[in-house]
Amino acid sequence: MSLSIKAIREGLAQGHFSAAELARQTLAAIERNNPAVNAFTHVSQERMLQEAARVDQLRAQGQPLPPLAGVPYAVKNLFDIDGVTTLAGAALFSQQPPAAQDAFAVSQLRRAGALLGGALNMDAYAYGFTTENSHYGATHNPHDLTRVAGGSSGGSAAAVAAGMVNFTLGTDTNGSIRVPASLCGVLGLKPTFGRLSRSGSVPFVASLDHIGPLARSAEDLAQVYDALQGADETDRFQSPRPVEPAATRLAAETPLRCAVLTGYFDTWCDEDARTAVAQVAKALGTQETLTLPEAELARQAAFLLTAAEGGNHYLPQLRTEPHRFEPNSRERLLAGAMTPSAWYTQAQRFRGWFRDQTLGLFDNVDLLLAPATPCCATEIGAATMRINHTDLPVKASMGMLAQPISFLGLPVVTVPVMTAKGLPIGVQLIGAPWREATCLQAAKRLENLGVVNVEVKR
Amino acid sequence: MSLSIKAIREGLAQGHFSAAELARQTLAAIERNNPAVNAFTHVSQERMLQEAARVDQLRAQGQPLPPLAGVPYAVKNLFDIDGVTTLAGAALFSQQPPAAQDAFAVSQLRRAGALLGGALNMDAYAYGFTTENSHYGATHNPHDLTRVAGGSSGGSAAAVAAGMVNFTLGTDTNGSIRVPASLCGVLGLKPTFGRLSRSGSVPFVASLDHIGPLARSAEDLAQVYDALQGADETDRFQSPRPVEPAATRLAAETPLRCAVLTGYFDTWCDEDARTAVAQVAKALGTQETLTLPEAELARQAAFLLTAAEGGNHYLPQLRTEPHRFEPNSRERLLAGAMTPSAWYTQAQRFRGWFRDQTLGLFDNVDLLLAPATPCCATEIGAATMRINHTDLPVKASMGMLAQPISFLGLPVVTVPVMTAKGLPIGVQLIGAPWREATCLQAAKRLENLGVVNVEVKR
Repeated sequence: MSLSIKAIREGLAQGHFSAAELARQTLAAIERNNPAVNAFTHVSQERMLQEAARVDQLRAQGQPLPPLAGVPYAVKNLFDIDGVTTLAGAALFSQQPPAAQDAFAVSQLRRAGALLGGALNMDAYAYGFTTENSHYGATHNPHDLTRVAGGSSGGSAAAVAAGMVNFTLGTDTNGSIRVPASLCGVLGLKPTFGRLSRSGSVPFVASLDHIGPLARSAEDLAQVYDALQGADETDRFQSPRPVEPAATRLAAETPLRCAVLTGYFDTWCDEDARTAVAQVAKALGTQETLTLPEAELARQAAFLLTAAEGGNHYLPQLRTEPHRFEPNSRERLLAGAMTPSAWYTQAQRFRGWFRDQTLGLFDNVDLLLAPATPCCATEIGAATMRINHTDLPVKASMGMLAQPISFLGLPVVTVPVMTAKGLPIGVQLIGAPWREATCLQAAKRLENLGVVNVEVKR
Repeated sequence: MSLSIKAIREGLAQGHFSAAELARQTLAAIERNNPAVNAFTHVSQERMLQEAARVDQLRAQGQPLPPLAGVPYAVKNLFDIDGVTTLAGAALFSQQPPAAQDAFAVSQLRRAGALLGGALNMDAYAYGFTTENSHYGATHNPHDLTRVAGGSSGGSAAAVAAGMVNFTLGTDTNGSIRVPASLCGVLGLKPTFGRLSRSGSVPFVASLDHIGPLARSAEDLAQVYDALQGADETDRFQSPRPVEPAATRLAAETPLRCAVLTGYFDTWCDEDARTAVAQVAKALGTQETLTLPEAELARQAAFLLTAAEGGNHYLPQLRTEPHRFEPNSRERLLAGAMTPSAWYTQAQRFRGWFRDQTLGLFDNVDLLLAPATPCCATEIGAATMRINHTDLPVKASMGMLAQPISFLGLPVVTVPVMTAKGLPIGVQLIGAPWREATCLQAAKRLENLGVVNVEVKR
């Protein structure tokens, strides 16, 4: 299942294999590889075979195939799947009835012909950066099974890195796509805030939540992103902007002006991360550096909004059944619900100021470059990591370079670079609002130059 | 100064009077009438004469006059006026240096040729519905000087009702244009949230604040509104919608489908208010009634957002100089800053739900009708008013029928109807988002039918 979307399309067209064969191989790969990785919390065997049969029926009838026909994928278990209980990583929801319909994104992918393989592990409530889930277990990093996969979309990154499916869906509130993509060595796209409909996904922080895909190449990522685009009037946070396809613009030769983010982003990472950014910067011909003013405050404000909105969201259950909560999150959620509203509104006011200060940076550059994580994957169970001569708590700090960017709602593609220690690390390609296509173009260029290269780890 | 904008334009064009004469008469009228009404906190004599001289210079040169040339106006004292200290009704700001430039709205009106007569009294921080200001005194209702003018834009309504100026600017967070317009018997426009730039006005509740004009006719109101429109990139809350002039569409003969709001809006008002709504409804050929679901909750949520954001805004000074705060507001602001963020975020979440529930009402109607206040003006100093067999606190409850509407950000024109007891009361003509022109058309129609008629009270 390390075939690209294009290879699947051609293989199906030329009759080298059927969609049913792809589905069976996928299910076999999950059965073989998942026990060690623990990426899946649910395998939707029957649905995958049915969706494959539909594709093969179209082939038999000689009808044109939809753009993702026969492509195996899976989704973070906070997306509704018709007939499956939506867990959002939480024991709290394990007894809920199954979802009555697919999330908007899942229905888009179904329409595009993709084959759903199941639901993926995550930090409970999407509140974490390591996918060390007390109820469903830790997801293991395919590059080193003793290490974390990152989170909160850890299962989404690990399933792609281990070659169990072609692509996955994750969500990113403070870094939850970018962090696991970085640690598992795959590509991830966090689109502009408001670009993709979130309907049918369990909300965490309404003013920060994004959905997005993870994949093994810029081309695959762009094609999935294009299939996800589309207006959904039930999501009031979605922007009314038109669909802007990215896959067809991937090979555009337009020059890309880039700048490396210094200050906070250069201080709070290790040499592996710095080297990776330097490699990417060099490949993209980057000379310039820029600073985001008050990036540390932006991170703190993002933490505040997260705790307050997340705490509010779960307050009814925190009151009535606190014992059923993820122990790694319960106290944070309770404290969040009790923060004074003055802190919350101050954080939102700061956010406006920060946005005004930073959007001007894109007058002169197309992309900002920064590490996606301070370092490579840490050991499962490690409490701290040493960055900038400081012991930082892993669970809170692995997203510290991602948070200030999602706080701004900017589109980011994170691309994996291999480090000297044999573990991957991600570099954020950060675009101006609504410029996902530019981020994807840069990722494609880096692949062409051999700087970015995903190795499937079985 | 009870001339209409059109009469001023024609009088100037035909040489019946000069702008300088208009300015001098305005200043004389303020000097004569203001002591009893206490609408002005600052009279900008010199500026008014200078602005008049500029208009007369254009006339002498035979140049075309801008749309509001020679029209005397004044602004709530939370708008910046170049060279004048911006009070926002608060003793707290009385020692601040003068503003270095005009608010965006004031600069728009200056460009349109209007003559600024000064700054107007208000509830401190715009937090109140009666303009009983502990530091600057109560504004008296020109219809009965023993009664309140309403608030928080009390000076803005009283100055227009007493004929001291042609129009004024106010602001409306929870009803602060509509309540005083109702009690003083003038028209007021609260535009759609995000329509007009708020730059250079003292903020109170960022997610609820609107600015808007008060005047004595729909025609004047529409012309001032048109002059206020325009993009201001420094206001990040302003919508990027294009300017949509309303004055030229005032006489449109398109049928207006209206519905009277029942339930909450019919329960929490007295017979005067009900009769006024019935008169307006009859004149507009209204048969239908509609209900806003959970209007009472909407009011409570608006209160919460107001207290929390207002409390946050003033928290630094509440900490360091609480003794300088308006005693009617200090404890409310302190309590607001300390509300849990879970309440604030819940109120914002409810707001989204409420908007989804209510915007569909406009699929079948153009306007919703409701009283602007539960009753006519109460006596200055009165603590309670009896509505629906209940003693309600005047200061908090006079805006209870306005709050659920601004919570939705909908455009409203409030029009005055004379009651049997000889005091006016306002009726809200509530439009769909961005349909200010429809509200103004209905107001014009009601004037033509003789239902709405502003009497100047000197």
